[in-house]
Amino acid sequence: MTISIIGLGLIGGSLALSLRQHGLASHLIGLENNPSYAKRALELGLVDIIAADLASAVAPANLIIVAVPMDAMLTILPQVLDLVTDGQIVIDVGSTKHNLLAAVAGHPRRRQFVAVHPMAGTEYSGPDAAVRGLFEGKTLVVCDADASHPAAVATVEALFRALPMRVLHLGAADHDLHTAYVSHISHLTSFALALTVLEKEQRGEQRIFDLAGGGFASTVRLAKSAPATWVPIFRQNRENVLDVLDEHLVQLNKLRDLLAGQDYAGLTTQLEQANEIRKIIP
Amino acid sequence: MTISIIGLGLIGGSLALSLRQHGLASHLIGLENNPSYAKRALELGLVDIIAADLASAVAPANLIIVAVPMDAMLTILPQVLDLVTDGQIVIDVGSTKHNLLAAVAGHPRRRQFVAVHPMAGTEYSGPDAAVRGLFEGKTLVVCDADASHPAAVATVEALFRALPMRVLHLGAADHDLHTAYVSHISHLTSFALALTVLEKEQRGEQRIFDLAGGGFASTVRLAKSAPATWVPIFRQNRENVLDVLDEHLVQLNKLRDLLAGQDYAGLTTQLEQANEIRKIIP
Repeated sequence: MTISIIGLGLIGGSLALSLRQHGLASHLIGLENNPSYAKRALELGLVDIIAADLASAVAPANLIIVAVPMDAMLTILPQVLDLVTDGQIVIDVGSTKHNLLAAVAGHPRRRQFVAVHPMAGTEYSGPDAAVRGLFEGKTLVVCDADASHPAAVATVEALFRALPMRVLHLGAADHDLHTAYVSHISHLTSFALALTVLEKEQRGEQRIFDLAGGGFASTVRLAKSAPATWVPIFRQNRENVLDVLDEHLVQLNKLRDLLAGQDYAGLTTQLEQANEIRKIIP
Repeated sequence: MTISIIGLGLIGGSLALSLRQHGLASHLIGLENNPSYAKRALELGLVDIIAADLASAVAPANLIIVAVPMDAMLTILPQVLDLVTDGQIVIDVGSTKHNLLAAVAGHPRRRQFVAVHPMAGTEYSGPDAAVRGLFEGKTLVVCDADASHPAAVATVEALFRALPMRVLHLGAADHDLHTAYVSHISHLTSFALALTVLEKEQRGEQRIFDLAGGGFASTVRLAKSAPATWVPIFRQNRENVLDVLDEHLVQLNKLRDLLAGQDYAGLTTQLEQANEIRKIIP
């Protein structure tokens, strides 16, 4: 199968590695608007060639994967659909779905497009961030599958199941709500935590960083993530993210008030309740 | 060297394993007020024997390590100092220092006591949480070393350097301020994040948990931590924790307002600033 990947960053690049590793791509074509990324993707062997433009990336491919930031996705995905002919399949790998699916809802090639979100990533970006095995054992969400050709859905699912990934079907609205809770809010709190500590450091508290142990590193890790990736995600999923952020502020303020009021029994009850997360994230 | 460890949880148990592994303890005595923990510590071979009471744990030891939660620490450490005779050394491994050092400031055996904080841990607790290598490559903070015999400080530092750990000297007040920033706030935000998601789940959003990827797991991991460990830490370091929590609420509200106001340029600037944490946590 000839596969073209538009966007050779963390997700596009890691997909290239995984597809090649599992023998799923006989020929890999890349398109990348950042020239240094394009050069690096070739050096790393992520793709076999870099296409000159979108038309020449799309034409020879059985499958086109659009793996660009969510803002670019809204313009590039319709352009790709404009270019495809019968038998070609297009997927996005975007982190938000509602606005994207609305943008292609009336497109004559809509049924050749399958909306998927591989629930995997790291805090790094660009082709150098591509890692083998990123998707292994993770979940692939397929959104609004009814709007796609059953054969296209079957082909795409078989491809990702081979990585291997678990497949989960969700409506686009449900997807955006749930990812706000399990992914987007984690990034926002991590960014805020980094800003909190850096604010203190500006006041000369350099010593903080000699002390950073595993707990701090794991909660602040996501704050290294690229704004070019995350601002478009927050923008596309703004209402859900604000909803969960407001709930988080309620919970943080509750803990704050219990501590300020020296209500340690109440604080214990809250932390015991938080411990219930053990049942879900073993 | 005969070493007694009072409290055979995550830290006490892991220290037992590390001291044994590096040939630093010829005989290990444990004391544990939870009978099932005491039984388990023997089964796991963390210690050679369990002492009947505090006096018989302290008497034969060259070094006594007090590794109990911070509330119990405030009463047990003075009791241990009451029991020691010339030549014995006592350390605590507590996460807060100011109140503890104030509690033993006038004790006639104060100079035989060295206040240390090994900056290492996991979200698990009890003797089953004890892991080999927990302290390897981590930082040991020695607090207010001037209040201890230089020979006692040298003995304790040599012991921890052999694990191997890096040694850092800090005043107790500085220690409590900095740990609020690098450890205590991470735990509070993680507890609040778990409560946020569980609140949503109570409303029937079970699906959330099918989607939880690596980002969520790493930010919410600390919410599995024991309230019996953490409430006493928040209590003993209440002013610093409230100070950093209030700064964190300012930063979170700033991000919220930028998103609510659709100021994506402003949001980008903030996230770029948060990225500076890369320089500190590589």
